[in-house]
Amino acid sequence: MIKTDILIIGAGPTGLFTVFEAGLLKLKTHLIDALPQPGGQCSEIYPKKPIYDIPAFPEILAGDLVNNLMEQIRPFNAGFTLGERAETLERLDDDTFIVTTNKGTKHHAPVVVIAGGLGSFEPRKPLIPNIANYEDKGVSYMIKDPEVYRDKKVVIAGGGDSALDWAIFLTNVASEVSLVHRRNEFRGALDSVEKAAELAKLGKIRLFTEAEVVSVQGKDTLEAVVIKHNDAEKGETFLEVDDFIPLFGLSPKLGPIGSWGLEIEKNAIKVDNAYDYQTNIPGVYAIGDVNTYPGKLKLILSGFHEAAVMCQSAYQRINPGKRYVMKYTTVGGVEGFDGSKKEAKKEVVQSILA
Amino acid sequence: MIKTDILIIGAGPTGLFTVFEAGLLKLKTHLIDALPQPGGQCSEIYPKKPIYDIPAFPEILAGDLVNNLMEQIRPFNAGFTLGERAETLERLDDDTFIVTTNKGTKHHAPVVVIAGGLGSFEPRKPLIPNIANYEDKGVSYMIKDPEVYRDKKVVIAGGGDSALDWAIFLTNVASEVSLVHRRNEFRGALDSVEKAAELAKLGKIRLFTEAEVVSVQGKDTLEAVVIKHNDAEKGETFLEVDDFIPLFGLSPKLGPIGSWGLEIEKNAIKVDNAYDYQTNIPGVYAIGDVNTYPGKLKLILSGFHEAAVMCQSAYQRINPGKRYVMKYTTVGGVEGFDGSKKEAKKEVVQSILA
Ligand SMILES: Cc1cc2nc3c(=O)[nH]c(=O)nc-3n(C[C@H](O)[C@H](O)[C@H](O)COP(=O)(O)OP(=O)(O)OC[C@H]3O[C@@H](n4cnc5c(N)ncnc54)[C@H](O)[C@@H]3O)c2cc1C
Ligand SMILES: Cc1cc2nc3c(=O)[nH]c(=O)nc-3n(C[C@H](O)[C@H](O)[C@H](O)COP(=O)(O)OP(=O)(O)OC[C@H]3O[C@@H](n4cnc5c(N)ncnc54)[C@H](O)[C@@H]3O)c2cc1C
Repeated sequence: MIKTDILIIGAGPTGLFTVFEAGLLKLKTHLIDALPQPGGQCSEIYPKKPIYDIPAFPEILAGDLVNNLMEQIRPFNAGFTLGERAETLERLDDDTFIVTTNKGTKHHAPVVVIAGGLGSFEPRKPLIPNIANYEDKGVSYMIKDPEVYRDKKVVIAGGGDSALDWAIFLTNVASEVSLVHRRNEFRGALDSVEKAAELAKLGKIRLFTEAEVVSVQGKDTLEAVVIKHNDAEKGETFLEVDDFIPLFGLSPKLGPIGSWGLEIEKNAIKVDNAYDYQTNIPGVYAIGDVNTYPGKLKLILSGFHEAAVMCQSAYQRINPGKRYVMKYTTVGGVEGFDGSKKEAKKEVVQSILA
Repeated sequence: MIKTDILIIGAGPTGLFTVFEAGLLKLKTHLIDALPQPGGQCSEIYPKKPIYDIPAFPEILAGDLVNNLMEQIRPFNAGFTLGERAETLERLDDDTFIVTTNKGTKHHAPVVVIAGGLGSFEPRKPLIPNIANYEDKGVSYMIKDPEVYRDKKVVIAGGGDSALDWAIFLTNVASEVSLVHRRNEFRGALDSVEKAAELAKLGKIRLFTEAEVVSVQGKDTLEAVVIKHNDAEKGETFLEVDDFIPLFGLSPKLGPIGSWGLEIEKNAIKVDNAYDYQTNIPGVYAIGDVNTYPGKLKLILSGFHEAAVMCQSAYQRINPGKRYVMKYTTVGGVEGFDGSKKEAKKEVVQSILA
């Protein structure tokens, strides 16, 4: 059982910044995310694109925003349960909560914050009969640790940025990389498309376009896939592989959170924005894209503010009656749970007489 | 008469970011500030100190935060009325407003946003009889344009950072710089104290410590000051000068805004935080440190969120009935009023066949 002060569901920018605000209040945090990496939409959908409306950044790549947030929260040693979906919320008699993931990992905390964005990112799966039998046995829909594919024969399906970028990346890891796509044209950043074309030319990426994986085979684990070509004359290709990775994009689904007894409106969780972004279940908050209230803007900068306000309320719940005196970070510095301390240089009081 | 869409009172971080959010909505902005430079508390009180809780900046100097904001809002050509205090608010029959400063500058807009922080920064003045007669005639309490002192004989009074930093700076501008301070010890950043000591040693700053300016003299404009030494034996020094600049700090005062008919609570303006940060006067909003509501945090990051939300409401007021479709900056780019356009690189759709 993982224990923490504030359990955060969703490691997007909002969830990440909550670690920092909680840390200033000496509260410990732990994050759960269905994705294998932190950053939510910013990491999953548009890591290489610029954002222009993060205050005081005239321009910042979404991926850099996430890196900066990870650096900012580092002193607070947050725990992460990645690649797992928060499935159930249970309220105990003492008004604390247990959240269990689809893989059975249990988390216990007096405060739960849902920073779930548009929902848990779930892969779009290809319609291949019996593919479910090979999930985690050679078939995976996202790449958690590329080292898993070291010296393996890998086939990737898809025509977008992730398919291109992972195909490129794995040429240095896997023994064989094939890329299968329904069309001839790929859609992605110019860099990626050009790099993939170069690797295809060199034979480092085996290319199957206007084609589709239609069947997966193997005794216990995956051993081969069958690729069907649009061009009937070409018929089918039988390919021996260790791994099949369909990367057809991830789409967010509010999912299990929808049945936790929270008030839902327009696919989002209603909160009390006039006070502390608490939901109808006391002790459960919702911040960032996942919540709704009159005038709500689904902007990253709003998630940051909501995190700061929500942590103050969580502090009161966790330390009832204790008075919290807010200190500016400039004045009080930042004391990490890792023993680190950042603070402004002190002024000196000194004569300047010769 | 200066005309704009959103008139912003206060050019602190909150007011500055409002320019950006308004600009995204194609609304023009103009700012008024009592200080000679933008940045509010960040520029005036702690420009060289680090802030640790600006989201995605593990550390940023307050002065750099302001510089970054100025850079971010540059495409939107905001107007500035600096060094003037907004004195009166008048509501016209057509529900637009005229705001007049202490120097008589008039501004006309359908929306007024008070981003006045802790209030208008007002100088602490020394208790010298008849000093008021020389204000703007040789006596000034803040430095707007250092070139005014080119080849002049200047005496600065004060023992903190601004006194030190301006004394240092003016050694390269004025023909003579004297520095008068009640005590022997100065309080400031180590750099500044050491630099001032060095210049004092070289005779570039004439130092009078344990001393005070007790009288100002001159026919129409300032011609001399009298410095009294604590040490009775030293008596008084008569100093011919062109300029006397007492830098005893600026302290913020809510000031005239307090009598505009706004609901005030704890020296701050009450707003409707459950919706759009509007005050009890429709069309007048209050954001940043100057407002209050249940759970209010006087943090820079909160001012940013309040600015974004408030601008949406202002848009509706200025364009009644018009539907605004929000586009992410990443998707829609940023179109400046200066003809500039920033946008993400487009994806390509392209074959990667050899
Ligand atoms: C193309 C694009 C461009 C954008 N441009 C901008 C812009 O310019 N400016 C701007 O402010 N915003 C922009 N946005 C929106 C911005 O990305 C979101 O506002 C922001 O990501 C919301 O952050 P969040 O942390 O609330 O949620 P998210 O980033 O959505 O993160 C939520 C996380 O929670 C996880 N999660 C949800 N439910 C569960 C569960 N049950 N179990 C485990 N994990 C779960 C998800 O997997 C996800 O990782 C853009 C979005 C897109 C798609
Ligand atoms: C030493 C110190 C350390 C701090 N550290 C932090 C920190 O670590 N993190 C954090 O988030 N915050 C910190 N703060 C607080 C932060 O600086 C404020 O929250 C922020 O400056 C508020 O911004 P603002 O734009 O709302 O108001 P301000 O910065 O106060 O700006 C308001 C401006 O309005 C002007 N004004 C007011 N009335 C009038 C008028 N009638 N006419 C003309 N002009 C007027 C004022 O002159 C001023 O320039 C700190 C503050 C101090 C003093």
